[in-house]
Amino acid sequence: MKALRYENQKLSVKDIARPDTNGEALVRVTLSGICNTDLEITRGYAGFQGTIGHEFVGVIEELPQSEAVARPSGSIQRSEPLLTRGLLTLGQRVVGEINAGCGSCPLCRTGDPRHCEKRTVLGIVGRDGAHAELLRVPVANLLPVPEEISDERAVFTEPLSAACGILERAHIAADTSVAVIGDGKLGLLCAQVLATTGAAVTLVGKHQTKLQIAARRGIETITSKQPPPRRFDVVVEASGSATGFELALDLLHSRGTLVLKSTFQGTTDLQAARIVVDEISVVGSRCGRFAPALELLKAKAVDVESLISEEHPLSDGVRAIGRAAEQGVLKVLLRP
Amino acid sequence: MKALRYENQKLSVKDIARPDTNGEALVRVTLSGICNTDLEITRGYAGFQGTIGHEFVGVIEELPQSEAVARPSGSIQRSEPLLTRGLLTLGQRVVGEINAGCGSCPLCRTGDPRHCEKRTVLGIVGRDGAHAELLRVPVANLLPVPEEISDERAVFTEPLSAACGILERAHIAADTSVAVIGDGKLGLLCAQVLATTGAAVTLVGKHQTKLQIAARRGIETITSKQPPPRRFDVVVEASGSATGFELALDLLHSRGTLVLKSTFQGTTDLQAARIVVDEISVVGSRCGRFAPALELLKAKAVDVESLISEEHPLSDGVRAIGRAAEQGVLKVLLRP
Repeated sequence: MKALRYENQKLSVKDIARPDTNGEALVRVTLSGICNTDLEITRGYAGFQGTIGHEFVGVIEELPQSEAVARPSGSIQRSEPLLTRGLLTLGQRVVGEINAGCGSCPLCRTGDPRHCEKRTVLGIVGRDGAHAELLRVPVANLLPVPEEISDERAVFTEPLSAACGILERAHIAADTSVAVIGDGKLGLLCAQVLATTGAAVTLVGKHQTKLQIAARRGIETITSKQPPPRRFDVVVEASGSATGFELALDLLHSRGTLVLKSTFQGTTDLQAARIVVDEISVVGSRCGRFAPALELLKAKAVDVESLISEEHPLSDGVRAIGRAAEQGVLKVLLRP
Repeated sequence: MKALRYENQKLSVKDIARPDTNGEALVRVTLSGICNTDLEITRGYAGFQGTIGHEFVGVIEELPQSEAVARPSGSIQRSEPLLTRGLLTLGQRVVGEINAGCGSCPLCRTGDPRHCEKRTVLGIVGRDGAHAELLRVPVANLLPVPEEISDERAVFTEPLSAACGILERAHIAADTSVAVIGDGKLGLLCAQVLATTGAAVTLVGKHQTKLQIAARRGIETITSKQPPPRRFDVVVEASGSATGFELALDLLHSRGTLVLKSTFQGTTDLQAARIVVDEISVVGSRCGRFAPALELLKAKAVDVESLISEEHPLSDGVRAIGRAAEQGVLKVLLRP
């Protein structure tokens, strides 16, 4: 099968063996999305080697025996915990959470493997990812995609859940003033998700065409050339640049919260004294859960279609990664 | 009167005019303490010019007419808000909170000027400080020193309140595992204050003689050459060095809280991705309130005497600042 691999500091589409399921599910990928983390991996971030990609929608091609017991009708019967996530069957359209835990540590036992110390992460840490024809995923990570959500929308579940994850890390309510820095795909998703809380959200960006996507959803937008006065309770840094961190500190009032959302390779200069003097809280936010994101997609509460810039066949994966890194390009999708 | 001044990038003891009270109290300083922030100011931090110093104990020499109405007995009668802070009289032994607010903004109206946008700060921002014979302080900032607390202990009220301020910014309870990085005077105070919550506190330092001060209070101590495993809920960075920030990230488990306590000039390299991936909260903590610190001093719940390395006359202020910057020296006091 074809897969977009990053190995020995080189990116290429390769023909590799069909994955062993090893007690997990096998998913045939319908669409995968290129995330900035994919680009960072090709710059050395996380030291990853293998098939990159962690945003996908696909259909179940194989389920492990313990999870899929053939019924007379040919459908499958599943173990109890999964029933609460909706019926999974062969051929079922699914999305998958990206952190695969050990299954036995206290965190995993609560059903949240996102900080399991032994976790692997699809296409990021120790496990092949989604820019491939087939993908191995733990059954517990899969969620069925409601009929109302098209593949082109469902492929945004992972980045949208990451935006939802902010709400687990910072208190945001209708009376919170929020700025999001960065009008890239992550910033546009964050701004839209945070606006669903009723909070007044301002998106700070550089590109009128991108800002307009947020403006159409009733979000205030301003260009970073004319930053607003220092008046925000919460600022989300989603630009992935070191200057975004500085700007965030400029926008926050004292005791405000800076949510760091971007992962990127390298270091940034920190004026630690500013954090101390203004008693800022800098809060890292990584992955969210998929269920709230699927709810938002189902309710059409966020515009994700406008974020799709291009679709390429998986065989053109290397070129697609190059395109995704270009200025002005938002989400690039790959179709195996 | 004599004052230790930092002006035009030069530190010197000068004879300057007695301060105008301008509606504030005048305090004759008995003892003042040299803080690392004083040293940072002489390296350019905060761009301050004037009399440095913000840790002091003294006696009230003058009170403004509106605050001090002569009673027949010669004592004074004071306005209502101050009565709640204990009786202030001429000759009263006092300590003083260091943030002087505008008095009219929403923050000041709640009685907490620490983040007033227009604040001045004793010896740090726009207002002469405490390494002087006389010091002008807003009456609202003064607190009487209980009889049980000697001058040598009372002079620690400000740094001790800064340590207490951590409890306003991070949840620390008996079941919280806490590490404090830095066995300097700030780290020793932080470790002792946090231990009063019943939390298991570990002090990470470099100097056996300093670590022993904490060990005598039942605090676990380890040298930073052999850092402990990553297992803390909260790590307080009180070493004032960039390496302390990295070490703190090494010690925290995921979703832990890093309290930044030191203010220093310059920047430090931040690996922002570590904060995002482990969803760390980095929380700045500056000033605390004096009342809890006075309670701890009164109850003899913390050992501050062991932190006194030397006392110098104010006239030797320049040499004293030099001494305070030397390796192994803890608190240096100045006596006008």
